[in-house]
Amino acid sequence: MALILIRFSPSKPKKGELVKVSVVVRHPMEPGTRKDENGQIIPANYITELEVAHGGERVAHVNPGRGVSANPLFAFMIKAEPGEVTVRYTDTAGETGEKSKTLKVAE
Amino acid sequence: MALILIRFSPSKPKKGELVKVSVVVRHPMEPGTRKDENGQIIPANYITELEVAHGGERVAHVNPGRGVSANPLFAFMIKAEPGEVTVRYTDTAGETGEKSKTLKVAE
Repeated sequence: MALILIRFSPSKPKKGELVKVSVVVRHPMEPGTRKDENGQIIPANYITELEVAHGGERVAHVNPGRGVSANPLFAFMIKAEPGEVTVRYTDTAGETGEKSKTLKVAE
Repeated sequence: MALILIRFSPSKPKKGELVKVSVVVRHPMEPGTRKDENGQIIPANYITELEVAHGGERVAHVNPGRGVSANPLFAFMIKAEPGEVTVRYTDTAGETGEKSKTLKVAE
């Protein structure tokens, strides 16, 4: 299963402050058009869906295309409310992965 | 129409190098749950769909939720190939916007 990294910036925002959520998935993102050293097509294997929830509510839903790099990064802004941020992905190989990180909010 | 900002980092990458594409849309992202000073619900008005194409191929497709901040930022990595990057959005008010920026690649 691919490694998922979740980062909050600032790491401990004040309530209601904007916080940037960065998600990196360690994934090869093979577009299915590259050849290996023997001239064989490397099969497509890329993330087709990535979903981010915050406190149980979906805040972002991303469908990366073939043109997205290996180890894709996605980032977006949310308003800081304490709660768990959960990332789920599905790739063309049918593999899924999930990771959660608790967003802590300064009083 | 909302203002769309597209930024490449590095601004002029080498061919095949990773380039971070940052997209900011100036949009209120009203979740439909806030009240104004008279206690009236402020109607929902948020981006439901944001699509990014590079050289005519879709590279990202984002469905922001209600929890995404005003003036949302989205960022992701692509492999640098010269071509036009186009961002399109649709919001709950049925408004659409589009902006293109040419990615230049150093030889």
